[in-house]
Amino acid sequence: MDEDRLSVTFAALADPTRRAILARLSEGEATVKELSAPFAMSGPAISKHLRVLEQAGLISRGREAQWRPCRLEPGPLRDVAAFAERYRRFWDESYARLDAYLQFVQDDIEEPRDE
Amino acid sequence: MDEDRLSVTFAALADPTRRAILARLSEGEATVKELSAPFAMSGPAISKHLRVLEQAGLISRGREAQWRPCRLEPGPLRDVAAFAERYRRFWDESYARLDAYLQFVQDDIEEPRDE
Repeated sequence: MDEDRLSVTFAALADPTRRAILARLSEGEATVKELSAPFAMSGPAISKHLRVLEQAGLISRGREAQWRPCRLEPGPLRDVAAFAERYRRFWDESYARLDAYLQFVQDDIEEPRDE
Repeated sequence: MDEDRLSVTFAALADPTRRAILARLSEGEATVKELSAPFAMSGPAISKHLRVLEQAGLISRGREAQWRPCRLEPGPLRDVAAFAERYRRFWDESYARLDAYLQFVQDDIEEPRDE
């Protein structure tokens, strides 16, 4: 995995509008015009976000000059998942400790110990 | 999941040194001094990265004024995994299509069709 590529991907994802565009494209291809409407943003503002997503390889755009429909490209998201998965044992451990604590509290409520 | 929190997390992860610090901390707690050595960076440079990671909730720091060991906090990484997982069906599909294509090519090599 190219480290710089991952930085570009994370930087592209560090914006709620860009993540919302990806969520919209997960339902199917869309043109800039179709993407502008739900976000209440101008075409140029959306286009700027699309350029960032395209440079990060998170979307691709059709070749037809006028429409250029946008399409989700999942490769970088797979790399993001792989990155986070390396740390899974840590959050699994956190949950295991929380579970154990909640079970302890529950037992204590059901069977109060003598103080 | 707080959308702005996720933006802060992604921005913190968009740097190879900060990701390397997290990888180091996945092996155990470390002081700023211990973190500075392998990265060939000054204490202040590392401290700046640590502040970004701490503000994103990706690490926590001990209370002892002098040492303040850094510790990995996995919560935001779990949110990153959850975000990426929403797109899993797309990369699974990409792989399925690639698999199908490679199988087709393989079959063609083993049993050339008459042209």
